Amino acid sequence: MGDRWELLTRIRGPRDLDRLGPEQLDRLAAEIRTFLVDAVSKTGGHLGPNLGVVELTIALHRVFDSPNDKVLFDTGHQSYVHKLLTGRQDFSRLRAKGGLSGYPSRAESEHDVIENSHASTVLGWADGLAKANEVLKKDDHVVAVIGDGALTGGMAWEALNNIADAKDRPLVIVVNDNERSYSPTIGGLANHLATLRTTDGYERFLARGKDILERTPVVGRPLYETLHGAKKGLKDFIAPQGMFEDLGLKYVGPIDGHDIEALESALTRAKRFGGPVIVHCLTEKGRGYQHAEQDEADRFHGIGPIHPDTGLPVKASAVSWTSVFGDEMVKLGREREDIVAITAAMLQPVGLKKFAETFPERVFDVGIAEQHAATSAAGLATGGLHPVFAVYATFLNRAFDQVLMDVALHGCGVTFVLDRAGVTGDDGASHNGMWDMSILQVVPTLRMAAPRDAEQLRAQLREAVEVEDAPTVVRYSKGVVGPAVPAVGRVGGMDVLREPGTVPHGPSGMGGTPGPDVLLVSVGALAPMCLEVADLLDKQGISTTVVDPRWVKPVDEALAPLAERHRVVVTVEDNGRVGGVGAAVSQALRDAGVDLPLRDFGIPPRFLDHASRKEVMAEIGLTAPDIARQVTGLVARLDGRLDDEPSRTAEPARD
Amino acid sequence: MGDRWELLTRIRGPRDLDRLGPEQLDRLAAEIRTFLVDAVSKTGGHLGPNLGVVELTIALHRVFDSPNDKVLFDTGHQSYVHKLLTGRQDFSRLRAKGGLSGYPSRAESEHDVIENSHASTVLGWADGLAKANEVLKKDDHVVAVIGDGALTGGMAWEALNNIADAKDRPLVIVVNDNERSYSPTIGGLANHLATLRTTDGYERFLARGKDILERTPVVGRPLYETLHGAKKGLKDFIAPQGMFEDLGLKYVGPIDGHDIEALESALTRAKRFGGPVIVHCLTEKGRGYQHAEQDEADRFHGIGPIHPDTGLPVKASAVSWTSVFGDEMVKLGREREDIVAITAAMLQPVGLKKFAETFPERVFDVGIAEQHAATSAAGLATGGLHPVFAVYATFLNRAFDQVLMDVALHGCGVTFVLDRAGVTGDDGASHNGMWDMSILQVVPTLRMAAPRDAEQLRAQLREAVEVEDAPTVVRYSKGVVGPAVPAVGRVGGMDVLREPGTVPHGPSGMGGTPGPDVLLVSVGALAPMCLEVADLLDKQGISTTVVDPRWVKPVDEALAPLAERHRVVVTVEDNGRVGGVGAAVSQALRDAGVDLPLRDFGIPPRFLDHASRKEVMAEIGLTAPDIARQVTGLVARLDGRLDDEPSRTAEPARD
Repeated sequence: MGDRWELLTRIRGPRDLDRLGPEQLDRLAAEIRTFLVDAVSKTGGHLGPNLGVVELTIALHRVFDSPNDKVLFDTGHQSYVHKLLTGRQDFSRLRAKGGLSGYPSRAESEHDVIENSHASTVLGWADGLAKANEVLKKDDHVVAVIGDGALTGGMAWEALNNIADAKDRPLVIVVNDNERSYSPTIGGLANHLATLRTTDGYERFLARGKDILERTPVVGRPLYETLHGAKKGLKDFIAPQGMFEDLGLKYVGPIDGHDIEALESALTRAKRFGGPVIVHCLTEKGRGYQHAEQDEADRFHGIGPIHPDTGLPVKASAVSWTSVFGDEMVKLGREREDIVAITAAMLQPVGLKKFAETFPERVFDVGIAEQHAATSAAGLATGGLHPVFAVYATFLNRAFDQVLMDVALHGCGVTFVLDRAGVTGDDGASHNGMWDMSILQVVPTLRMAAPRDAEQLRAQLREAVEVEDAPTVVRYSKGVVGPAVPAVGRVGGMDVLREPGTVPHGPSGMGGTPGPDVLLVSVGALAPMCLEVADLLDKQGISTTVVDPRWVKPVDEALAPLAERHRVVVTVEDNGRVGGVGAAVSQALRDAGVDLPLRDFGIPPRFLDHASRKEVMAEIGLTAPDIARQVTGLVARLDGRLDDEPSRTAEPARD
Repeated sequence: MGDRWELLTRIRGPRDLDRLGPEQLDRLAAEIRTFLVDAVSKTGGHLGPNLGVVELTIALHRVFDSPNDKVLFDTGHQSYVHKLLTGRQDFSRLRAKGGLSGYPSRAESEHDVIENSHASTVLGWADGLAKANEVLKKDDHVVAVIGDGALTGGMAWEALNNIADAKDRPLVIVVNDNERSYSPTIGGLANHLATLRTTDGYERFLARGKDILERTPVVGRPLYETLHGAKKGLKDFIAPQGMFEDLGLKYVGPIDGHDIEALESALTRAKRFGGPVIVHCLTEKGRGYQHAEQDEADRFHGIGPIHPDTGLPVKASAVSWTSVFGDEMVKLGREREDIVAITAAMLQPVGLKKFAETFPERVFDVGIAEQHAATSAAGLATGGLHPVFAVYATFLNRAFDQVLMDVALHGCGVTFVLDRAGVTGDDGASHNGMWDMSILQVVPTLRMAAPRDAEQLRAQLREAVEVEDAPTVVRYSKGVVGPAVPAVGRVGGMDVLREPGTVPHGPSGMGGTPGPDVLLVSVGALAPMCLEVADLLDKQGISTTVVDPRWVKPVDEALAPLAERHRVVVTVEDNGRVGGVGAAVSQALRDAGVDLPLRDFGIPPRFLDHASRKEVMAEIGLTAPDIARQVTGLVARLDGRLDDEPSRTAEPARD
């Protein structure tokens, strides 16, 4: 990798750090920073979080002996430095198929433990590992790195409560507190600073901390205050050592998270302590890269490819699903004063920034707390408002019980907007939004829409917020919204996207059945692909109707009578096959006594390795040619022209 | 209701409390206690928790003006007193069909808000309601009552973090801290007591508190300490007012929760404060009923009918699913040192008491924290142990994301034992375990067993803990385990419970199809009912094979070939129909190209009102005659003898 990274390239594993002196360690940190900016500029990835933990990760690997000791990262997008120090320095295909994962990966390294990108899990893992060490009488150490934001998640509290209980079970918790969100308007901050002044490391903190405080004016930022409320509440909680020690956790800090020597000293003390201990490190997100350091909007948290010198994106961004939602929310907000918005610490990524700027009193950032988002939404609805909770589809899993038991059971009009639904690809297994249309099927009264284009998204969002006695869901994909797909007709509440019989009836008609062969049920953004499937079937002489049910739950009552006029039903969805829309359609047909052959295409029930969306879709057989080939085979079998259908490219549901 | 409850019967609504003086209020409290003991002795229900909140509930309704002010109860089994004070005094059919619900119920009263029996939700509701009041500029008050145990749940923390953030949004949190679990061995308790001494109400607390401390010896109870760890950690957290105030919550307390005057004074101060405030009340579970007060095992938390004078159960208890599990766990624990157990604050109810007595170092009570139970289990498994997490089926909903993302994604060998699965009935909508076999279907690699009898439970538990690289689930019903149902054969991994052809082939054979007509897939404890269905079908000349798949996920590979030898497939499960075992069987058959008519019987997708299990099963059509009638109709239609199947008694999946 050349001279720029002379020291770095000599690090093959954590123990190679042992022989480096203080100056060399600082040089290594500098090399890692330029490496990260260089590498992530090319591939895209999480830049800011990793620039913030360079020294911390070096210190962790000098003090602890991974993999015997377990070094655990929460929400592992800040594990790039860890990867560089544990033998993984080829970042050329970061997050691409066959390249390094953007998260820890057990398949990559014995130094990786937690692959999950859902936040706030690390303390639970650490508690379990520490308990196992105790039961098995092992002396290995467990160290968990968690951001201050992730501490807002309930799981973190549940774990802290457990960890604090065992006074002699060793466990080191590193709170990676990045100053950037360190807002000075916190309630009891003045008192807490007084406490902090008496501790080691405060002078070091003060020198840099003052800087930050000055950049963040105390007055005139009500919006910021409102939006970052949850995190602020937490800061207040973090600052006083008193609280951790009341709970039974030894507290060390605050430590300058960019001072390797201070970090090593604190971590060494913590390691020797023999019980649960918190090491509170102050770090700076984006540290050492001025474009990131100076960016208030935190655009460098996760990035696409950028020009490293300017920090500007290589590609101009087109209109996204997210922005269509965001714009329509502002319109809705103007029309209806009862509409309020909720985000779980992702105001900008889910598209609520404009709404927040327009209606600052009507948006609630609850922290990384999807459970609370859902239950407080039930309260808001009961109190007379209509809350819209916008969240990544995969993260709604956290709130399943609350959607079911608080929102649905109580008949609350709450709209859940699920962004990044379906295959997202490059963020790996835990970021794909492939579970929502399955688990939400079981929630009584809940209605779910999967819009196929921007116009439908706007229309269905409006239909959703009209429902006042039940939860509604609108789910859509990541990224750029495709061209409009017009309807050519309507049956019940469903849009007909394509009528059959536009081609002469082919051999499949010979079975004596009049009418079209295939009813193709297209879900959401897969409409263009489904139309392509129909064209391919046409060429085989198989006439096909394509419908978009628009509302995929409940199954439209007009579907069964429509299906009955066909010989085969095919469903295509960007969601797990198990229990998804296809399964629901199949059940609705059975219930109506319509026992037609049905084939349901979707995502197989396994975790998907990171790759581009297109690569993943090809791999799992969710392409027009694959689907057309299998449907052709089925029709041929029904015609008696084939004994067996071709084997599925799309994988069966058995796992 | 006679003279015994002279004052009580005159209370038609909360405002009737206004005209009572101090002595009358004390008399009312006494009347309520005798009423509760009398009523609940007859019907069964939650006795201890309600005896503990008599004065608190009276004070709440005197200080706050329900239903304009919202009086909210967490885990509403302590709402009996609230019911008595809000016009509901006919307890004769408590928890029975058509009678009062054992939880708050919006259908019963405008004074009820939260029906959900899942813990730790109240602060989220309260936060939403308070935010709605703020947006809508209403002056109504919100008061939330939460037990100290429920504060261990992550949702409660997420909510506290949000509530604390808005310093001028009024919200009163009443922590109902029942002394019984007030263990003196807490870490920093001595320090906290010093703080408490300076507050109002401490003297009152001390007089009674000393008593309790004396009843709970400091040494010699390592088991108790281990098991109640999570709660202890929390006590430590509750005691110091410092922490709440650091967070930005005004703290009032501790208050003697049985002193109406003191309670009213504290609540009035809290109500006037104008921001979020915590009122810390010390109450005694079972207060005033000596059998409950003196019972260390907390047997009076929820009870069946008892003799009011002795506190002993009216019915002797038979062998339960829970005890079969509990006994087998002890055996497994002896055989394998790596097996550890986890409970979420329900050691005794889930049957882990014997295991805990035998292996105190190998059981972990994590508090009301299902998320942490699952994620720490992933850590335990990664650390080399095999954790068994025993939990009520309905509560596992809370940990769906953790089962998926922490346990399954990471290939951890963790066994989930789901008790009270299926229709439980009298605890109402939120206690039925009707979701597990649906949502867990989507978890890749997870295997799920539904044992049909005690022997199968023991065998399948053993099979489950053998799996070291994936989650396993064993789920069973509430209550008494039925007689053994022997297998008459085996196909693949499935038990054949009944071969077809034991009766002469009837008219249904005339369709020209040789072999039996119906393959009936029986899930778990419904085996006897399925055998009864088969007998009824026999009488119609319909020959039936009955199989128990034993492992319902993944669908056994032998099922499709077996199904192909029949004309119809029928599945019967004690779980939601949507996405359940029937749906999975249907999908597996499609994937194998076996396009047979299938009918799936299970619980319809709606919330079930409280009633006995038997009544609920009849109402939803999960009875042998109903199922037999519908299958007979289907077979007749296939034979061309009927145009239409009979309409389903079992409700369709559309909701």
